[in-house]
Amino acid sequence: MTKPLSGVVPPVVTPLHEDRSFDAVSLTRSVDRMIEAGVDGLFLLGSSGEVVFSTDKRRYEILEAGIAATKGRVPVLAGIIDTETERMIEHGLIAKEQGADAIVATAPFYALGGPAEVEANFRAIREEVDLPLYAYDIPVCVHTKLDVQMLVRLGEEGVLSGVKDSSGDDVSFRRLILANERAGHPLRLLTGHEVVVDGTYLGGGDGSVPGLGNVDPYSYVQQWKAAQEGDWERVARIQDYLTRLFEIVFAPKGVTGFGAGAGAFKTALWLLGVFESNQMPRPVKALEGENVEAIRTILIETGLLQG
Amino acid sequence: MTKPLSGVVPPVVTPLHEDRSFDAVSLTRSVDRMIEAGVDGLFLLGSSGEVVFSTDKRRYEILEAGIAATKGRVPVLAGIIDTETERMIEHGLIAKEQGADAIVATAPFYALGGPAEVEANFRAIREEVDLPLYAYDIPVCVHTKLDVQMLVRLGEEGVLSGVKDSSGDDVSFRRLILANERAGHPLRLLTGHEVVVDGTYLGGGDGSVPGLGNVDPYSYVQQWKAAQEGDWERVARIQDYLTRLFEIVFAPKGVTGFGAGAGAFKTALWLLGVFESNQMPRPVKALEGENVEAIRTILIETGLLQG
Amino acid sequence: MTKPLSGVVPPVVTPLHEDRSFDAVSLTRSVDRMIEAGVDGLFLLGSSGEVVFSTDKRRYEILEAGIAATKGRVPVLAGIIDTETERMIEHGLIAKEQGADAIVATAPFYALGGPAEVEANFRAIREEVDLPLYAYDIPVCVHTKLDVQMLVRLGEEGVLSGVKDSSGDDVSFRRLILANERAGHPLRLLTGHEVVVDGTYLGGGDGSVPGLGNVDPYSYVQQWKAAQEGDWERVARIQDYLTRLFEIVFAPKGVTGFGAGAGAFKTALWLLGVFESNQMPRPVKALEGENVEAIRTILIETGLLQG
Amino acid sequence: MTKPLSGVVPPVVTPLHEDRSFDAVSLTRSVDRMIEAGVDGLFLLGSSGEVVFSTDKRRYEILEAGIAATKGRVPVLAGIIDTETERMIEHGLIAKEQGADAIVATAPFYALGGPAEVEANFRAIREEVDLPLYAYDIPVCVHTKLDVQMLVRLGEEGVLSGVKDSSGDDVSFRRLILANERAGHPLRLLTGHEVVVDGTYLGGGDGSVPGLGNVDPYSYVQQWKAAQEGDWERVARIQDYLTRLFEIVFAPKGVTGFGAGAGAFKTALWLLGVFESNQMPRPVKALEGENVEAIRTILIETGLLQG
Repeated sequence: MTKPLSGVVPPVVTPLHEDRSFDAVSLTRSVDRMIEAGVDGLFLLGSSGEVVFSTDKRRYEILEAGIAATKGRVPVLAGIIDTETERMIEHGLIAKEQGADAIVATAPFYALGGPAEVEANFRAIREEVDLPLYAYDIPVCVHTKLDVQMLVRLGEEGVLSGVKDSSGDDVSFRRLILANERAGHPLRLLTGHEVVVDGTYLGGGDGSVPGLGNVDPYSYVQQWKAAQEGDWERVARIQDYLTRLFEIVFAPKGVTGFGAGAGAFKTALWLLGVFESNQMPRPVKALEGENVEAIRTILIETGLLQG
Repeated sequence: MTKPLSGVVPPVVTPLHEDRSFDAVSLTRSVDRMIEAGVDGLFLLGSSGEVVFSTDKRRYEILEAGIAATKGRVPVLAGIIDTETERMIEHGLIAKEQGADAIVATAPFYALGGPAEVEANFRAIREEVDLPLYAYDIPVCVHTKLDVQMLVRLGEEGVLSGVKDSSGDDVSFRRLILANERAGHPLRLLTGHEVVVDGTYLGGGDGSVPGLGNVDPYSYVQQWKAAQEGDWERVARIQDYLTRLFEIVFAPKGVTGFGAGAGAFKTALWLLGVFESNQMPRPVKALEGENVEAIRTILIETGLLQG
Repeated sequence: MTKPLSGVVPPVVTPLHEDRSFDAVSLTRSVDRMIEAGVDGLFLLGSSGEVVFSTDKRRYEILEAGIAATKGRVPVLAGIIDTETERMIEHGLIAKEQGADAIVATAPFYALGGPAEVEANFRAIREEVDLPLYAYDIPVCVHTKLDVQMLVRLGEEGVLSGVKDSSGDDVSFRRLILANERAGHPLRLLTGHEVVVDGTYLGGGDGSVPGLGNVDPYSYVQQWKAAQEGDWERVARIQDYLTRLFEIVFAPKGVTGFGAGAGAFKTALWLLGVFESNQMPRPVKALEGENVEAIRTILIETGLLQG
Repeated sequence: MTKPLSGVVPPVVTPLHEDRSFDAVSLTRSVDRMIEAGVDGLFLLGSSGEVVFSTDKRRYEILEAGIAATKGRVPVLAGIIDTETERMIEHGLIAKEQGADAIVATAPFYALGGPAEVEANFRAIREEVDLPLYAYDIPVCVHTKLDVQMLVRLGEEGVLSGVKDSSGDDVSFRRLILANERAGHPLRLLTGHEVVVDGTYLGGGDGSVPGLGNVDPYSYVQQWKAAQEGDWERVARIQDYLTRLFEIVFAPKGVTGFGAGAGAFKTALWLLGVFESNQMPRPVKALEGENVEAIRTILIETGLLQG
């Protein structure tokens, strides 16, 4: 990456065929749609890109197709999410080989550890894989919150290039923004929370990584532009609209977590004609029946879909 | 309360003498200082007002002194925080007798329950105590997150008049703001998180309940005014300053939770000459030595205290 | 208490009339029934004794009636459960005045703290209230796990006389038993988990505090006697029976926590003719309809009730 | 496996050389030592076998060496632990090819899900991999507790052959033992908690999977034999000894989780001459200095090592 990452960097949702094979055609269509809307980068193999559901073979298939579809128009970040260091490094080396511009790693998970292991993990990855490294702060999945001071220290030392914050801890994120500023802004700080992007931009964040940006990339791009122009009322009103649209993830009944969240994104993309199916990876069921209709209703009410 | 609550409503920190008796003189000084700075209301007996540390006798002593000091200049909200319904109602009836303008209750805690008990609790309180009732959403203390739809429903039915959100879940709070708007704005929505007030105002929140507002009420009032004028850059820059000031709660070493948070507020108020001591209620120790110095340094760096 | 506490010490469930007033007659009947079955002590105002649901007035009413019903036949432990130190001390002083033989306190709760506050809390209570003090380890309610080494240290210093372990952490409890033994057995160690009493006795525990002992005190007493005689097969078979009986707390549908647990105990005592009603304190609803029938079925299947 | 699994089935700790390459010689020595002590089976690639720290290549290297060392003397269970279904199936197919007698899987982790996904995961694995499947209940790592009724249902349907319970929820495990009995004992139920094995055997468990069994397999085997003979006092006294020995995992200072637990096992095996090093996988540091000495002291005090 020749210039610092800023703006809107959606985590790319992975389309499947009905038989659960990977649908590269739909992925290409979705990538094109996002780049044409003006996004500033793409994050492949993130949580909503079903990285942990995919075998290694599938991961590399997705990454290959995603990089090919991007055609160098925007930088590509590749998730190397896995339980522990050696496994993450292995994914990182392959991502580099495949042409990713940067890699994204979480704290280790499953095995119990402490801050020493978290820091050693990022250091080891950076040492072994010659790509900019972003830390992905997602305690709801890995059950570890990344420490503000550790992040800034690793930024200053060149171990980390940025942070994707999906911690849900906006107090901590605000403190990180200020601590990063005091340190000379070594880290690019992106929020992963779709509905508080306005506050993040106002507070000095460098961008966003909104899963919902797969569904409506255009509005996130407009919001970023409004923020660059200091038109904060417009930033907030676009956020209001996007927050209403985000209700698609709360609409499904009897489904929780990834099945509801990524399931809603896939279903919306299918209803919008971007994906050919809303199929989900095992052991998750695709949304169906009334849950699909509830999402359709929201898409119509927000004007994304014709009634 | 004759008009809807808006703006800055600090939760009043409770001063103690060295011997841990209640210091009504310092409380009056602090209340005067906040009202003169322009705050829009005061919240007595909140978490940082040491409600759960105080015997019933002490609670009513604090409430009496606080209401007397306020002299009707701004509305007074009284915390009726306790484990379960009958105990909360008892506090509510006394708060009404003492002249509080509204009461504030959390979900029940200690005993395990579910959403039905949470809703029944608010309904029972409202039925028994003839005062506007605010819900206090503070899962870190009560281990229950208040549900967005329940809150709006209780607002529409007149059970709840507003919400103090200390949930740390800004996604949920943003959804609450929008759902409340759609319902005709029955609830007054105030954030309890000192460092994300700018984003809350931009997103449509009605005000804030910042513990840090005891230390610097003036800046929070200026921030609210800037928000009313739509000067969002100024709102954000004041937030940056307040976020730096808020570092006083992270400065103490070897202390966590209430001892660090309320302890830092008390220590700052003591260093600023508002409180006569930074004494804490049992079993918590007052901050001392280097921890006091670390707070003094931040007060000097932020310009609140002369170096 | 003239001799060390051992054996079966049920936490006494509190009966209410339909109108939610306290039913001292049923309490006396239940206390008599337990003492006649041979229990070794009674624990009033525990979690299942609805201590946190009761106003102070109600608490003292329950304690007075419970002590009167006991008539000195067995020692009475009184729960002084409340959020923080001063409030617990206040309850402790009244419990002493009312004639309790010992008091039981948890770690402080609601406000966030650390190990220093937990230890200071027990020390302050013991200093102010001249009664043997038992620590109640119940992280599911207070969100703090009591540390093994702290407990033994406070035992050696005479601050604590024993521990009621409802931590659900049997690894920790086993370590506590051994550490206590090495220290000369200063603490009486009682398990609060109804269905693992056999393992606790085999591992060297001093007794049990089973809520289910309200429903079938006789079997818990027989189990303790069998353990004293080293008849471990019998201990285990009685445990199997009691575990089947304990299914009453999992039988209610659509109810969780206290409403299901204490609700099932109350419903069983009502069906057995010990209580006159299964009424619950606000905001909890009494079990009804199919949930009552599910409990009746289990009572019949286990032979406690005639079909 | 021709007969139902019972007794002591240690999860095999994986030895590394100083350079972190896999040490097959030490593994063979450890496997021989355990089989000679009389263990009833071996569990390769469990949590303490560093399954999540190992690349796929390393996993298969460990499994190959472990199966070769076992030489068919006892059944081998292979952990197929990974984030989601397709990845687990991939490991399961390879484990079958390599000659494992059974496979062990947890609930999916990292992505958020619910009970439907957990059940679908076990069903899909069993359908695709023709080996007996054991469920590994370890919420501290995967943040999902397996439901008693689901486990018994999957046992009755032949999806699951047994459960390794490392849930720390002995109430639930006791309920599982009884529910399994009522269903005709379709599941083999093994506890993974080293220090409550006596209570588990008394309560009707089928065996244990003790990490500490790597360090002292002989005592666990003797304990199982004593349980078979109904000599419960002896079972408990051996447990007391093993609980004292288990203090090695709490002895290290400044280290938590896997680094302390598996680190202590490795260090003990190194001090006992079974392993050639106590090296740990990245990002974990091997125990050193005083932490090693603390473990040595416990080994001497318990008589495992000559002073």
